[in-house]
Amino acid sequence: MKISLEDTIAAIATPGGVGALAIIRVSGNRAIECVDNIFSGKTSLKKSPTHTIHYGKIFEDNQSLIDDVMVSVFHRPHSFTGENSVEITTHGNPLITQKILSKLVKNGTRLAEPGEFTKRAYLNGRMDLTQAEAVQDIITSRTEASLKGARNQLNGFLSKRVNSFREALIHMASLLELELDFVEEDISFTSPKEMDVKISGILDEIRTMCDSYAFGRVMKEGIHVALVGLPNTGKSSLLNYFLKENRAIVSDIPGTTRDTIQEELQYGGLLFHLSDTAGIRQAQDLIEEEGITRSNQAIRDADLVLFLFDAQSGFSEELYHHVQDLTDEIRMIRVMNKVDLKLECDSARDIDVSALTGDGMNELLEILKSRAISIHPYTEKSIVVTNIRHFHALEKSKTCLERARQSLEEQLSQEFIAMDLREAIQELDEIIGIVTTDDVLNNIFSKFCIGK
Amino acid sequence: MKISLEDTIAAIATPGGVGALAIIRVSGNRAIECVDNIFSGKTSLKKSPTHTIHYGKIFEDNQSLIDDVMVSVFHRPHSFTGENSVEITTHGNPLITQKILSKLVKNGTRLAEPGEFTKRAYLNGRMDLTQAEAVQDIITSRTEASLKGARNQLNGFLSKRVNSFREALIHMASLLELELDFVEEDISFTSPKEMDVKISGILDEIRTMCDSYAFGRVMKEGIHVALVGLPNTGKSSLLNYFLKENRAIVSDIPGTTRDTIQEELQYGGLLFHLSDTAGIRQAQDLIEEEGITRSNQAIRDADLVLFLFDAQSGFSEELYHHVQDLTDEIRMIRVMNKVDLKLECDSARDIDVSALTGDGMNELLEILKSRAISIHPYTEKSIVVTNIRHFHALEKSKTCLERARQSLEEQLSQEFIAMDLREAIQELDEIIGIVTTDDVLNNIFSKFCIGK
Repeated sequence: MKISLEDTIAAIATPGGVGALAIIRVSGNRAIECVDNIFSGKTSLKKSPTHTIHYGKIFEDNQSLIDDVMVSVFHRPHSFTGENSVEITTHGNPLITQKILSKLVKNGTRLAEPGEFTKRAYLNGRMDLTQAEAVQDIITSRTEASLKGARNQLNGFLSKRVNSFREALIHMASLLELELDFVEEDISFTSPKEMDVKISGILDEIRTMCDSYAFGRVMKEGIHVALVGLPNTGKSSLLNYFLKENRAIVSDIPGTTRDTIQEELQYGGLLFHLSDTAGIRQAQDLIEEEGITRSNQAIRDADLVLFLFDAQSGFSEELYHHVQDLTDEIRMIRVMNKVDLKLECDSARDIDVSALTGDGMNELLEILKSRAISIHPYTEKSIVVTNIRHFHALEKSKTCLERARQSLEEQLSQEFIAMDLREAIQELDEIIGIVTTDDVLNNIFSKFCIGK
Repeated sequence: MKISLEDTIAAIATPGGVGALAIIRVSGNRAIECVDNIFSGKTSLKKSPTHTIHYGKIFEDNQSLIDDVMVSVFHRPHSFTGENSVEITTHGNPLITQKILSKLVKNGTRLAEPGEFTKRAYLNGRMDLTQAEAVQDIITSRTEASLKGARNQLNGFLSKRVNSFREALIHMASLLELELDFVEEDISFTSPKEMDVKISGILDEIRTMCDSYAFGRVMKEGIHVALVGLPNTGKSSLLNYFLKENRAIVSDIPGTTRDTIQEELQYGGLLFHLSDTAGIRQAQDLIEEEGITRSNQAIRDADLVLFLFDAQSGFSEELYHHVQDLTDEIRMIRVMNKVDLKLECDSARDIDVSALTGDGMNELLEILKSRAISIHPYTEKSIVVTNIRHFHALEKSKTCLERARQSLEEQLSQEFIAMDLREAIQELDEIIGIVTTDDVLNNIFSKFCIGK
């Protein structure tokens, strides 16, 4: 869908529902004028300096008061969007915000599309595309780690890195293209050896970034943990203990669907999705086909598997082998529950806990955290790629650069090498949004909140 | 609970959940200083003029960025509370707002109690008590009518009226007290006749206000409608039709509990609570004691009863008489459903509808609205009392004034009359909060949102 930058747009920017305050955001050439038309205050908004706040009233067409409001005025380019902008702070009642929004629409604005404010910030050169994407990630981050990643991205850490690759590659490609112009004079501006070293250096960094995506994904989306155990080993006690102590902040992020059998908890800045695999009761009891298939799939998809047993019921070798067939050893954590019963048990395990008394439960969370990090290696200092669009573009530029090195090795014409470099550059351009298509933009911004 | 006005308070003022923006509100002597301590921007907030906005960053103790923020500065007395105030606009993520709030608490503020901002506005003389109460009503109003009532109250319509009574009564009481000083000289400043006329005038107005409360209550809380009918007369179709077309905005107002068998709809600026009285199946079938008792109670409590029948099943005289015994004729609306079947029927009724095609459904809503208004008479121009506290105080002042007239008639000593007038004045004082107790204040403000 093609939308015009000339329009003045408006949207409610605070979460829905009842609260003390709500904000309606307006942006565009005529933003200040449009709000001034519906605003009765001591001062004219049109004559107000930027970054000032004005008290006034907004009336219905029949002169009855809708609300007392505070209006903040921002002159272009000193606003989030880079356009003239106004924020109207009202009492936090949806009846009021809806009325004011309707009034704005009657007075020259239109309702903003999801993410349209941020899209304008991008189109007006206030931020690049990775930063625009980070804006939504900041809003929807549910863990410290994810928020930190999004913050770094908004601060331009990713863009700066990608830009440095781009500039180096553009320089190389230009030299190669220059040589092509002078091909008959046989002048050389760069040696294949030197070029190979430079490309290798960039390739190494891009590979590290691609590798970070596995961790970036779990950082952003959370770690899937499957809970496996015989009946009465205390799976639900374990779950309840965690949920009492570490339940994740529940939020209504548009577009997220919650599986009813999944529970979420937070620990160490990470989000864990726990799913109970009740389908697998005992290895002998493999009759409830549908439940078993689903449980098996949950184990296969899980980043980690908590294998629960207790000294009373004993360690079921059969169940353990069943799980082993579905996942890697490194993903399995063997947990003996009911340590409070003080029973003897010589089965190998990673940790003893009591979901009743809480003994060992924090240590178990530590194991979950360190195992989550160890299965997706990354170093604290490297940039973590959390966005699948960035990951795919980096992967593609990696392939182009590998091809360029291959061509260098095979001593192919500079033409081919320059072409490979240009392709790699284009992929990098797409990441930061130097080149892009309407489809890509629509895809990105349609996932945003309204009002952002 | 005694809270100090000296503290600087902070709270998240926007609804919970994820959105584009959120606001943290800070108020108190040290508000600007406290925010300045945690804020890194180009300008010092302490040196900023009132009503200005400043871009900057807030960091964690370990120097990692929490968020980019916009900070609005308000100097006393030019703020909602009348105190130095700051509003911090952040990205609308609860993780971020919680972090900033914690940081504020570590830097000299404390978490605000519910309604504490408005309480301070009242205690600092920015508004009287009826206006403070109106602030919360504005936020939680769910219908046009209720919002309008709250707006009028915030604008001081009620206060002005109450104040005019107070002043007239104070004047009268003062003259009477003056006469008492000169009792031996037998000087008279006012005639009993004149006084009686004045008191009667005020009494009439207060009576009208007391009478308006019945309507004020339904305006604020909605109209309870019980739906009665034999099985298969289309009660659920009727309910579903309404809910599709007129469903009330669902909001999570703290403290409101929703009965699962109640549905809400909005029409003509009014809120209707529809409850199905499935318990009464047929008059013959009065065996499910518990269900019947509950349904009977629902009919007794209902402002209106929709008596539903159709030409196919016929009009059940038995059920009708059962309902008649529980409510007044004026509250009953007889509705013939399934008019689309085009069957003959000569039973008396108020309206024919088809919940299938929608025929007559709007007319039915009109009947509901006009009947709701007619059972609680009020005139558009009179002040509508919506608050039970105001209602009780007005009732008490009414009693005092009636006693004063009685004393006048019985030619009792001016002392007694003055005393009655003083008592009436005290009740009026309590309405606008000239005199009040901690208990009254706590009771009022504890029902507020946090951040308001």
